[in-house]
Amino acid sequence: MMKLPALIVMPEDTPEIKKANTRSYGAEIVTYDRVKQDREAIANRIADDRGAVVVPPFEHPEIIAGQGTTGLETIEQAASRDMSLDAVLIPASGGGLAAGNALAFTANSPATQIHTVEPEGFNDHARSLASGKRERNAAASGSICDALLAPVPGELTFAINQPRLASGLVVSEAEVKRAMIFAFEHLKLVIEPGGAVGLAAVLTGKIPTEGRIIAVIASGGNVDPGLFAEILKAR
Amino acid sequence: MMKLPALIVMPEDTPEIKKANTRSYGAEIVTYDRVKQDREAIANRIADDRGAVVVPPFEHPEIIAGQGTTGLETIEQAASRDMSLDAVLIPASGGGLAAGNALAFTANSPATQIHTVEPEGFNDHARSLASGKRERNAAASGSICDALLAPVPGELTFAINQPRLASGLVVSEAEVKRAMIFAFEHLKLVIEPGGAVGLAAVLTGKIPTEGRIIAVIASGGNVDPGLFAEILKAR
Repeated sequence: MMKLPALIVMPEDTPEIKKANTRSYGAEIVTYDRVKQDREAIANRIADDRGAVVVPPFEHPEIIAGQGTTGLETIEQAASRDMSLDAVLIPASGGGLAAGNALAFTANSPATQIHTVEPEGFNDHARSLASGKRERNAAASGSICDALLAPVPGELTFAINQPRLASGLVVSEAEVKRAMIFAFEHLKLVIEPGGAVGLAAVLTGKIPTEGRIIAVIASGGNVDPGLFAEILKAR
Repeated sequence: MMKLPALIVMPEDTPEIKKANTRSYGAEIVTYDRVKQDREAIANRIADDRGAVVVPPFEHPEIIAGQGTTGLETIEQAASRDMSLDAVLIPASGGGLAAGNALAFTANSPATQIHTVEPEGFNDHARSLASGKRERNAAASGSICDALLAPVPGELTFAINQPRLASGLVVSEAEVKRAMIFAFEHLKLVIEPGGAVGLAAVLTGKIPTEGRIIAVIASGGNVDPGLFAEILKAR
């Protein structure tokens, strides 16, 4: 809307479709190795060189507020159907989407239980919410859920999430794939692996669903056609 | 809602996912050969045997009215965005969805041009609208658009459509596949071949789009995972 140039720092292993879509919106892309390099350092250096503003993916009040609009819309949509939500499930990487939703829900729908959902091996939120302090993942890569691999909950996001969230749920890669197939077959939606963890948690009974109304945030559809085809064919 | 038993008469070559979903909703299925058999005769015989009511796919005032609710919703959604629609594109088989929309649009959005869209070789509406009388397709099968193969426009539906529609558009199989891929990549929607003809018509410029607002009805997502995967991989 502002016609500003944009440069996005993305992991090398980002799905090609996400890179292509990002470029088609007019942005430049710089990639980095998520195991060996520090994306914040790269972004800061480029911003210094160019006199640009860094827009971090989660660790910033305005980013969190922006992501929280998902929560406001979810609450509005539930209210328009005279529903009150028993729980909301939110995919978590750095925890910004969860923090924004946590603020939206505790203010406007305080009875709703809020859960993060993460893939196995990258359950830093689940462990951090259980222990009360920010826990780090052992690995930096190796999950199909490429969007959920931040190594540790953000400081700011965890300060918001810790007192407001019920718990963190964890799903396996096979469960994620089955949820993507379910979305294809029944919802007619394309959901990327990291976006499907919430649906996977519901379908596999990671929380009680009987008689409850549960909102699931499906936070993205950037999945490469080759991977999607492979998942469909393996069904 | 009424807990009534249902039996659906479907072509043998119906996608497996449509059969599976239909069964999972509790219906019985009887299949027939769309080249050699007459589905109306089969349905009427079964209805006689069982004392059941035949619900035809398009040739009935109440079915047409029901399908027309798509048009009412489309008009409502456009109005809620302060948009007035220049055109609406409707996939056509027997013409019931088109007839319902034609009634909805001429009554509530009379400036909107209404077009059917069909696959090559099954363009009975395009030809019938051009000639002013019901034209028949040469073939009974042989298109990827399995839902759009009715042999001829319905009598009742064509009486409604003929005076109200602007024209019929026609798209190729390759154009349909590219539209399905576009929906996957950009809309994150699963659209079946027959449901994607309208989007294909827009993407390939079968009607002018410059400065116009065009509604596209995407009338179904029952595509077998194997076929969808094949289309994605061939991209």
